[in-house]
Amino acid sequence: MISSVTNQTVKRIALLQSRDKERREAGLFIVEGSRMYSEIPLDRIDSVYVTEDFVDHASQEIRDRLSVTGYELVTEDVMKKMSDTMTPQGVLSLVRSYDYSLEDILSRGSLFMLLDGLQDPGNLGTIFRTCEAAGAAGVIMSRGCVSIYNPKSIRSTMGTLFRMPFVYADDLCETIRTLKGRGVSVYASHLEGSEDYASLDLTGPSAFVIGNEGAGISPETAAVCDRRVRIPMEGEVESLNAAIAASVLLYEAHRQRDL
Amino acid sequence: MISSVTNQTVKRIALLQSRDKERREAGLFIVEGSRMYSEIPLDRIDSVYVTEDFVDHASQEIRDRLSVTGYELVTEDVMKKMSDTMTPQGVLSLVRSYDYSLEDILSRGSLFMLLDGLQDPGNLGTIFRTCEAAGAAGVIMSRGCVSIYNPKSIRSTMGTLFRMPFVYADDLCETIRTLKGRGVSVYASHLEGSEDYASLDLTGPSAFVIGNEGAGISPETAAVCDRRVRIPMEGEVESLNAAIAASVLLYEAHRQRDL
Repeated sequence: MISSVTNQTVKRIALLQSRDKERREAGLFIVEGSRMYSEIPLDRIDSVYVTEDFVDHASQEIRDRLSVTGYELVTEDVMKKMSDTMTPQGVLSLVRSYDYSLEDILSRGSLFMLLDGLQDPGNLGTIFRTCEAAGAAGVIMSRGCVSIYNPKSIRSTMGTLFRMPFVYADDLCETIRTLKGRGVSVYASHLEGSEDYASLDLTGPSAFVIGNEGAGISPETAAVCDRRVRIPMEGEVESLNAAIAASVLLYEAHRQRDL
Repeated sequence: MISSVTNQTVKRIALLQSRDKERREAGLFIVEGSRMYSEIPLDRIDSVYVTEDFVDHASQEIRDRLSVTGYELVTEDVMKKMSDTMTPQGVLSLVRSYDYSLEDILSRGSLFMLLDGLQDPGNLGTIFRTCEAAGAAGVIMSRGCVSIYNPKSIRSTMGTLFRMPFVYADDLCETIRTLKGRGVSVYASHLEGSEDYASLDLTGPSAFVIGNEGAGISPETAAVCDRRVRIPMEGEVESLNAAIAASVLLYEAHRQRDL
């Protein structure tokens, strides 16, 4: 049982929580909570840390899983030190990072989400979750996007992280050109878009680009897209939340394909 | 200039930040930040607190507004104590609470948002913002919902709070019966809904009910609605984020009305 908060493992996990660089170098990310633990693919689990209280109160399903994955006991104080949350749930897992290719995404379906400089981890996780629900094949992010392995992003995906392929594109414009070359229509969600999103035919291969929460899509990225599309807004609203805009577009595509 | 963090005004504002009861009794809520300050209707402003640094760097528009509303100078330390955020923007306003009636909402349009036990302040604010954008007439909340005057709710509305009528209903079921009596179709967003939301005719007076983030809509509320509708979900997603579900429904209504 790890009982000292100055233990090397505890220090390492605190670094993995806060620093994307540490996560990249280790090829690991952290997943907290019981429900998320139950959804981690077994072959990706590196190690699991639990409190005695968690084990004592775990369901039979979780106990069975713990006996398969193995685990290390830690004290409540150590778990608090390791955790990103104020009230840790008593289980924290180190998980091996994903390494998808653009081809993994392109071969999986015909609806794609592109993100250009998205900064809010909650928005990112929520977009992942909605992408899965709307039937998107994968998420392509610019290097300037927040990390999907940020603890808040992970929580907001509600498990979609384990099922949805994603890549960080070194050059998003180049990736958009690749998509277009493969017959995918790429639509930039833009406040100054001239076409109403609802007027598009989204039954063919389609990709939507959503930009940064404040600045929107970069001019370079917008220039390389097929069209700029607009979600109409009433009243005095200046913009929609990024995850809301993504969802309205994704579900319009889903609606058209489901008819 | 208020320079002592133990000043009575500072203590009072800290209470107004954290406690809904204090806000209700005072009939006031707190609005932080420069952009939000510029959108507060002048006749609702009770008092304004600013740092010297904020005044020194304010735009001409903000300076003009400050000369109309008046303001009290506070030190940086006092502003930190008053503020709900880690990095205060240097302007904090006390604003008189709204007191809308159901009639204010019903007379304003034909698309309504009902919330049953919604708990996340960010979700609530985002739903307000999206309601305005999609052309909804107002928001009706059960008593169990989080306060729209919660600092996080206010921030997430991005100014819609000053433009969108809302009420907290003592008895949401009774309010739904009233809506139905006035010819409004009331649709409960429900995971076990039998009808696909996209198959509805939403061109007539319509209301959507969104439930609690974990538990959904209460059985009593669902029972009194006209129909239970479902947003289809692919993959292994168990539910959508509450604000996302609200947006998909609201924008489907907007799309049908805009055709």
